[in-house]
Amino acid sequence: MLDNVLKAADTALPAALDRLFALLRIPSISTDTDYAAHCKTAADWLVDDLRSIGFEASRRDTPGHPMVVAHHDGPGPHILFYGHYDVQPVDPLELWNSDPFDPKIEETAAGKVIRGRGTADDKGQLMTFVEACRVIKSETGALPCKVTILFEGEEESGSPSLIPFLKANADELKADFAMVCDTGMWDAQTPAICTTLRGLVGEQVTIHAADIDLHSGMFGGPAINPIRVLSKILAALHDDDGKVTLPGFYDGVAPLSNATRAAWDSLNFDADEYLGAVGLSQPAGEKGFTALEQNWARPTAEVNGIWGGYTGKGFKTVLPAKAHAKISFRLVGEQGPEAIRTAFRAHVNSMLPPDCTATFEEHGSSPATVLPSDDPAFAISAQALTDEWPNPAVFVGGGGSIPIVGHFQQILGMNSVMVGFGLDDDAIHSPNEKYNLESFRKGIRSWVRILNGLSKG
Amino acid sequence: MLDNVLKAADTALPAALDRLFALLRIPSISTDTDYAAHCKTAADWLVDDLRSIGFEASRRDTPGHPMVVAHHDGPGPHILFYGHYDVQPVDPLELWNSDPFDPKIEETAAGKVIRGRGTADDKGQLMTFVEACRVIKSETGALPCKVTILFEGEEESGSPSLIPFLKANADELKADFAMVCDTGMWDAQTPAICTTLRGLVGEQVTIHAADIDLHSGMFGGPAINPIRVLSKILAALHDDDGKVTLPGFYDGVAPLSNATRAAWDSLNFDADEYLGAVGLSQPAGEKGFTALEQNWARPTAEVNGIWGGYTGKGFKTVLPAKAHAKISFRLVGEQGPEAIRTAFRAHVNSMLPPDCTATFEEHGSSPATVLPSDDPAFAISAQALTDEWPNPAVFVGGGGSIPIVGHFQQILGMNSVMVGFGLDDDAIHSPNEKYNLESFRKGIRSWVRILNGLSKG
Repeated sequence: MLDNVLKAADTALPAALDRLFALLRIPSISTDTDYAAHCKTAADWLVDDLRSIGFEASRRDTPGHPMVVAHHDGPGPHILFYGHYDVQPVDPLELWNSDPFDPKIEETAAGKVIRGRGTADDKGQLMTFVEACRVIKSETGALPCKVTILFEGEEESGSPSLIPFLKANADELKADFAMVCDTGMWDAQTPAICTTLRGLVGEQVTIHAADIDLHSGMFGGPAINPIRVLSKILAALHDDDGKVTLPGFYDGVAPLSNATRAAWDSLNFDADEYLGAVGLSQPAGEKGFTALEQNWARPTAEVNGIWGGYTGKGFKTVLPAKAHAKISFRLVGEQGPEAIRTAFRAHVNSMLPPDCTATFEEHGSSPATVLPSDDPAFAISAQALTDEWPNPAVFVGGGGSIPIVGHFQQILGMNSVMVGFGLDDDAIHSPNEKYNLESFRKGIRSWVRILNGLSKG
Repeated sequence: MLDNVLKAADTALPAALDRLFALLRIPSISTDTDYAAHCKTAADWLVDDLRSIGFEASRRDTPGHPMVVAHHDGPGPHILFYGHYDVQPVDPLELWNSDPFDPKIEETAAGKVIRGRGTADDKGQLMTFVEACRVIKSETGALPCKVTILFEGEEESGSPSLIPFLKANADELKADFAMVCDTGMWDAQTPAICTTLRGLVGEQVTIHAADIDLHSGMFGGPAINPIRVLSKILAALHDDDGKVTLPGFYDGVAPLSNATRAAWDSLNFDADEYLGAVGLSQPAGEKGFTALEQNWARPTAEVNGIWGGYTGKGFKTVLPAKAHAKISFRLVGEQGPEAIRTAFRAHVNSMLPPDCTATFEEHGSSPATVLPSDDPAFAISAQALTDEWPNPAVFVGGGGSIPIVGHFQQILGMNSVMVGFGLDDDAIHSPNEKYNLESFRKGIRSWVRILNGLSKG
């Protein structure tokens, strides 16, 4: 059966591309309200397309852009597939070599690519799953698993409606596990499943000193300078080994397991290339850890923005009344976001000299995500990917956050298998975004294999 | 003779005010090229007015706004009087209670004031000297000293033409000493002569890390963050006692002389009031020094501006490619500006981690000014002021810089006696600038007394 479906998938590729192109032509930019009608059009297009396969599908309006929810029965485990149909804005438009919403196949040195906004992020990716369902259904008359689909329309604009929607529809959306298709391959030959993501605490601090900006001729010396205070506070966040000094910061950070270490070692990650690509040569994080460990397995404290005093051209001998910084912490393992926020605020307050106060602004938080890579769904998905691609599938970590995975864990009590076919050079969020034709073709085939594998447990 | 002239000065006050108002009505804003013609008009007005007294006066054009130079013979020492006829812009105009260029006399709780832009800074001040010359000349037919006058038209816009003009006309402008009238009284009852000014070194530093801004999910940990590097560099500029840590920084800083300490102690300076007025309570400079010493007698290192990364609303988990700061050093005594700039750059470079570089931008420098307060001109001026005002004249220091005084020392080899009648509440550079009518009246009388005293040696 499997071989027949895979063969049919290849045969149906031109028709699948026609459908993808139809979806890509809809400029569903979620962050710009001028494009709201296009987001609705894209949602309706998906509803119609899913119905044509046999899904019970509907557009579900929200205070923002609509969700698409679809259900299809099946004998195997119940999976929730997640993708998003909204796309990033296209400016600067002049850097595009062709119309971002007029997709085309282009020949490149690395093979054929689909060029256009949303090809890789995330319309091309989500359609790999839709097309897999379509070809399985047409060849076998059924789906091997029970499938629920959730397509979001606000992923590129902060997902304001997502949490309320998940909470309001938890019973409907809850499945055995989720498949999230918004990530990439390790390289063009090697599929990857991401099993850890770092959490994030965002925090803004303002140091207040005098009531007003002062002139350093009149007050330089006697008046406390809040930039100096802020510098000392930030400088004290790390010790000489690059460790974060906040008390209790490393509570919940486990050493790397031997299995994970072995998996990551097998990646033959090239730290020189990774750093060299951006003009760096040496891992600057905690001493005693590799660059990969520093990014995937170790927590950080970073200043993402700082400002105070006169920052224009020329010079002003001002002693500012305030100084500001935006600070974020990347979290791993079981680190508690709110405990870290509290420890940071205590650190700041403990270093304030007389006449200075600090105020804080919270900018969100999420714990790290650690997925149970020993769950059979991971092994089955990895085997299916290994069967499809030249190299075996690898388990990787992630240095960033994918909020949906945390929401599925926390709101729906459900783990996610993150499988995607993007590549580092896809230029997502940038001009001339592309998706390799092979990512699309073998992506469809990968889902056929994964659904087939999952149905057999 | 003196009593007659002083009496005549009071009698002539209404006419003197008419002339001042005529000058104040000319909107000679130097920083805005739209007002260039008004600057020329003000210069011409002054030339005409000085000629009417008997000065040989001329407008001297420069690449910027013109200078006014005038000469009058006399038997006593040769003095160069300096003031400036240009004024600050008036915005925000809506905060003015009346037209800034329609001056008027207003009654206030503290007595009558002259309200309008330039009343205190510096047209009202320079006209005290002009009116003193006029009344002496009209009453005695001569001036008791040889007087050269230099009025600048670019003081409020960086004085771009000043140094070339002083160099090109050094022989003509050189006198026994200068009288600079652009400072204030200690308080409304107490005239002051400023005998020390701090120097200044301005410096901008940029820390460069990666070639491009990075995302902290992709690179957080392994990539060095230039804001962190900059924070550590700035934090290390001061020790726990508030001392600047640069090697050799205090070379040339002499302890306060007993005479100066006694003079300053006699001021009964109220540090609580000085700091309290801006919301502070404790001197934050070097431990072991009073607030006044910290501002007048001790050098400083201050961060006047800092910026890097994302500084807008919300949050971005960016690791910036660069971070920047503007730093200034206030200097005293014999500290060498360029030695300090060199030491700062060495400090920065010594703290750079791998993959980081620093670039620097120079923003000017001037050494501290220490005037020979034991020169007879100071004692004579102080006695004349003491004779005129309720309280005896005091010798004070200054925490800022008055560049002209340094230029007169360095280019013309001439010291300056700084005498002025402004008050802290004059709102110079701000809306509703004023000059106390008593500052104007007794200012004229003070110059009559000073010129009289100087002529007797």
